[in-house]
Amino acid sequence: MATAGEVITCKAAVAYEPNKPLVIEDVQVAPPQAGEVRVKILFTALCHTDAYTWSGKAECKECKFCKSGKTNLCGKVRMATGAGIMMNDRKSRFSINGKPIYHFMGTSTFSQYTVVHDVSVAKVDPQAPLDKVCLLGCGVPTGLGAVWNTAKVEPGAIVAIFGLGTVGLAVAEGAKSAGASRIIGVDVDNKKFDIAKNFGVTEFVNPKDYDKPIQQVLVDLTDGGVDYSFECIGNVSVMRAALECCHKGWGTSVIIGVAASGQEISTRPFQLVTGRVWKGIAFGGFKSRSQVPWLVDKYMKKEIKIDEYITHNLTLGEINKAFDLMHEGGCLRCVLKMHE
Amino acid sequence: MATAGEVITCKAAVAYEPNKPLVIEDVQVAPPQAGEVRVKILFTALCHTDAYTWSGKAECKECKFCKSGKTNLCGKVRMATGAGIMMNDRKSRFSINGKPIYHFMGTSTFSQYTVVHDVSVAKVDPQAPLDKVCLLGCGVPTGLGAVWNTAKVEPGAIVAIFGLGTVGLAVAEGAKSAGASRIIGVDVDNKKFDIAKNFGVTEFVNPKDYDKPIQQVLVDLTDGGVDYSFECIGNVSVMRAALECCHKGWGTSVIIGVAASGQEISTRPFQLVTGRVWKGIAFGGFKSRSQVPWLVDKYMKKEIKIDEYITHNLTLGEINKAFDLMHEGGCLRCVLKMHE
Repeated sequence: MATAGEVITCKAAVAYEPNKPLVIEDVQVAPPQAGEVRVKILFTALCHTDAYTWSGKAECKECKFCKSGKTNLCGKVRMATGAGIMMNDRKSRFSINGKPIYHFMGTSTFSQYTVVHDVSVAKVDPQAPLDKVCLLGCGVPTGLGAVWNTAKVEPGAIVAIFGLGTVGLAVAEGAKSAGASRIIGVDVDNKKFDIAKNFGVTEFVNPKDYDKPIQQVLVDLTDGGVDYSFECIGNVSVMRAALECCHKGWGTSVIIGVAASGQEISTRPFQLVTGRVWKGIAFGGFKSRSQVPWLVDKYMKKEIKIDEYITHNLTLGEINKAFDLMHEGGCLRCVLKMHE
Repeated sequence: MATAGEVITCKAAVAYEPNKPLVIEDVQVAPPQAGEVRVKILFTALCHTDAYTWSGKAECKECKFCKSGKTNLCGKVRMATGAGIMMNDRKSRFSINGKPIYHFMGTSTFSQYTVVHDVSVAKVDPQAPLDKVCLLGCGVPTGLGAVWNTAKVEPGAIVAIFGLGTVGLAVAEGAKSAGASRIIGVDVDNKKFDIAKNFGVTEFVNPKDYDKPIQQVLVDLTDGGVDYSFECIGNVSVMRAALECCHKGWGTSVIIGVAASGQEISTRPFQLVTGRVWKGIAFGGFKSRSQVPWLVDKYMKKEIKIDEYITHNLTLGEINKAFDLMHEGGCLRCVLKMHE
């Protein structure tokens, strides 16, 4: 390629300070070193997912985690991605007029070109529309995988979903495809129910409509509790409710939402001693390099939805507007076109 | 039988008030009604297990719990056993001079004769020594089952056991038979290590020997954490340590100990989101009617220990001494001979 070994200058959104608007800058992207890949970004999507979740996504197939067969967390590049640098020389490949700019969450996709560790790259069907399958980087696989990989929902099961954003809707879709008999959506916003029906939610419960605790409402509605519950918000009180609405003896609750730093979950140990199971999950338990291509294939065969989650399409120059939309209620996923 | 349909008068230990010594009385035991069995008790053993655990032990094979195939908790006689009465007429079969005496934990084995629901009875190998296999009513199966049924420990796994009483030792025996590579016993009493070695514990850690939290000690000892941990004490702080000493990505912690009423467990949700699993168990996940006979057979084939847990043998008349011994450190299990 014409640019091999050369520095590429392109547009990127740069964060100079926390909580300040991103600034579109001309950045210099250095050539990749050994074990690295320089990638042209065509489309990317925004997500609530926190940095620590992303940092565990690379899948090296060499480290203790990858070899275990029990987890999708990979430790190989975690130290470097946390620090915003590359493993080889512990330096950044981004700069502006010679001043280094740190990488972001190990992928730095808010730049027209990026450099990533080879373990962070997956090859997908070249026919796949990139403005759609870019969603398979986070929220949608998280929801599907929580159902298929972590909870292993079986046909006939009763499922409760707390929070009907993108992840919650993906949980509903996963539960429907797994054959769940009842899929109960729990949200304080009644407007979400119409959308949620399209993803498989069969019943809707708004905690604001009841005086008793939501876990008791669900236990009463389901003859003793649900078989599986999923917390897709990141609220520790809701996490407790999600556990306690599970059926004694076998009910399993999966935490997907990311709580604010320092917050703790709690319950009476009786809840676990009587047979409930409390779990959590990052990126839906999928190993990204091997399973993202599989998810792309499922989309191409129309076995999973993607288009229905995309409520907004903007450009790199509009990235601050995209983040504002994400914090408002009406946006599920916003896809950014990175090149004019 | 000569006593069929007749009232039997025999000796029993009666609790008139909480925390007061039991009183040996002559009690009248009424004949069994439909769905009930009157049993002559030859030997019984004492246990720390709380009433709610026992109440869930009957296995009717008819209720929602038994049919699920997912749990050993049975709901059929729970209401009655909690109240100390029988299901048929909601009355007691015990009396003293016409005044009713309540049943205890659904089995009332501290009497020379008792009446129980048929779902609470299991038929075992008639060759089995009753002064030994009476231990299979509670603590030993709880520990073995927590390993085999709940955690499903696999060969090579690293296991930590918090608390080296009877249940903890049974966990060690179960883990050894499952092929665990390291079995780390955690206890504040160094004297327990010599006994624990005989049950399979390979390493001993006393939290008092360290300044740092015990979970950090174990993480450091095991290159990131244990594969399985078991809490066999009933202390909510230890339950948290047991979860947090588990390896990220797959570590599973099982709560066996029964905490004091009203106490709560807590942790950061990050502990679960990064792949740890928090579970609990009552009676080791065994279904008593079908699996206690199987455990008896395993004992007869010398595949599981029982004799080694029995540190004291006393008589019904010495029951208060037996409870005192149980609260002291040196007693594992005390077997009571019920007839002179």
